[in-house]
Amino acid sequence: MNWLEQPIAVISEAAIQEATERQQQLTKPPGSLGKLEELAIKFSAIQKTQQPQVKNVHISIFAADHGIANENVSAFPQVVTTEMIKNFSRGGAAISVLAIELNAKLEVIDLGTVVEAGELEGVISSRIAPSTANFAQQAAMTEEQLIEALNTGKAAVQRAIESSADIFIGGDMGIANTTSATAMACVYLDKAPVDLAGPGTGLDKKGISHKAEVIQQALGLHEATSLNAVEVLRFFGGFEIAALTGAYIYAAQQGLPVMIDGFIATAAALAAVKIKPGCDVWFIYAHQSHEPGHCLMLEALKAEPLVNMNMRLGEASGAAVVIPLLRQACALHANMATFAEAGVSNSE
Amino acid sequence: MNWLEQPIAVISEAAIQEATERQQQLTKPPGSLGKLEELAIKFSAIQKTQQPQVKNVHISIFAADHGIANENVSAFPQVVTTEMIKNFSRGGAAISVLAIELNAKLEVIDLGTVVEAGELEGVISSRIAPSTANFAQQAAMTEEQLIEALNTGKAAVQRAIESSADIFIGGDMGIANTTSATAMACVYLDKAPVDLAGPGTGLDKKGISHKAEVIQQALGLHEATSLNAVEVLRFFGGFEIAALTGAYIYAAQQGLPVMIDGFIATAAALAAVKIKPGCDVWFIYAHQSHEPGHCLMLEALKAEPLVNMNMRLGEASGAAVVIPLLRQACALHANMATFAEAGVSNSE
Repeated sequence: MNWLEQPIAVISEAAIQEATERQQQLTKPPGSLGKLEELAIKFSAIQKTQQPQVKNVHISIFAADHGIANENVSAFPQVVTTEMIKNFSRGGAAISVLAIELNAKLEVIDLGTVVEAGELEGVISSRIAPSTANFAQQAAMTEEQLIEALNTGKAAVQRAIESSADIFIGGDMGIANTTSATAMACVYLDKAPVDLAGPGTGLDKKGISHKAEVIQQALGLHEATSLNAVEVLRFFGGFEIAALTGAYIYAAQQGLPVMIDGFIATAAALAAVKIKPGCDVWFIYAHQSHEPGHCLMLEALKAEPLVNMNMRLGEASGAAVVIPLLRQACALHANMATFAEAGVSNSE
Repeated sequence: MNWLEQPIAVISEAAIQEATERQQQLTKPPGSLGKLEELAIKFSAIQKTQQPQVKNVHISIFAADHGIANENVSAFPQVVTTEMIKNFSRGGAAISVLAIELNAKLEVIDLGTVVEAGELEGVISSRIAPSTANFAQQAAMTEEQLIEALNTGKAAVQRAIESSADIFIGGDMGIANTTSATAMACVYLDKAPVDLAGPGTGLDKKGISHKAEVIQQALGLHEATSLNAVEVLRFFGGFEIAALTGAYIYAAQQGLPVMIDGFIATAAALAAVKIKPGCDVWFIYAHQSHEPGHCLMLEALKAEPLVNMNMRLGEASGAAVVIPLLRQACALHANMATFAEAGVSNSE
């Protein structure tokens, strides 16, 4: 795992300055394109051009099962992880549809499911185990498993770079993974499970309360407050969450911007920042999830998501949906006339 | 103006029900696509198909000058209205760039500017007068002028329908038009100018305070509280704002959905709803503008905008930017697999 020690790539301050100056000259009141200006400046600086574009989008969906599912913490049965892998492959899932709309590259990485999906088109088999261990009883992953998961995420980013991706999107699929992500967030944010636990795929009030209780006991069992950032990921995370964390850190090291999806992805981003402070300069937070604990994670990350569409599906759907906003931001930066070019008077 | 009396088109409740049922069957936790589900259901019902799409987007930018500009209420000189008409025509403005990105039809309608723009490609001349009158002294429009402006908006929607538009977007350009829109909103919402006046294109604190004072005096001069909804538009509105109002009402009568832009467009929508209650069932509110008074208007309209990108440019830019979200919502509705089709287990 020596690669984790590599430094984070730097975005040129001079390039940010140059892009900021161009935005001031475009025919609009300064700042009036709001978040679109910030996006354009970031991508102009990253791509070192006043004609930035987001042509190639690489989407990797990491799928895995969770031992904690045995504690009855999800509204859906565990077999759905495998069924959804098949659905991704056949093009029936939300992210399958969105990838086509965006002309994005979509790959699914199977990190281990209780029911084997078998060989499927568009699905890469990187199975670590049929599922993580039940963290209500023991650490979710062994050290070797965690390393394998982090490396699987890194490999996805390597493929993204090889295919000239302008942005990387990681997505998650794994029944019970909001329980895993919530447990991680509780430790990283020093919050109680009752403050962070939410309905996930659709638990009722009683279900949420049970979920919080399961997490609370597990935090005590593992003496969570004494764990370091990597250990928190290993004890409470999932294979897909650790893969996301690995992907995010490696992308930041390589200077590939990342669009962060919702609750699960943000928990992975939180782990990435705790393990590798400063890597989040490469992150863009797509949306505020409807999952209630998400806003506390975003707050801790000082992250301002682009939109709030009340989405809570995961599988990278929220990150994919905002890609056109980013593309439009780049087009505006590249193609709007300046005051001088258009002969438009600047403010008095 | 007999056409104003025509009824608002009705969206079939049965079609809404059918689309809602399909959303429940798609392979995702129910409701997890948030606002995208609401959009898809609306367009499915409007287009009476489970394969809705938003292919043809018609954008009409209404441009006009304002007599109130003489009261020194804008950060930009009045000639900018004309200069921006030329910029639209040459493809250098934000909306020009966005229209190309969206493959949308863009037309500009000149309703009257102090400096004549002359004949320009893509610009329709419907000049009513060089500008409205200064409402600090007299009503902004005569009755005839108001009718002409409303009819100009109606004509734009007629062109949209003739070109098989799936959605209509109206935009505004007119130096000092936030002063006009703010005055209208004060009357419709029964609020004081100090509560609603904002920086517009970039006034400082002192400028905003002066703007509020100008409006306050004009409201008194015209005994604003005694005016009916149409008179409020005539006394304080602009040619472009009245055109937007006419367009919105006619679109609702014809059953053409409208994407409402920011502050100015929402003031026109407010006028439309006050003049023709219920027409807003055809409106989608694109974004929460950075202009501070916008949220009060949205609140009064019980409108929940799709996004908040801190935009405050006008010229339909905020409405255009969200079109891809709508297109993705429709694609998801049309192309996602159902639980039955995909063999995915539903929630327990």
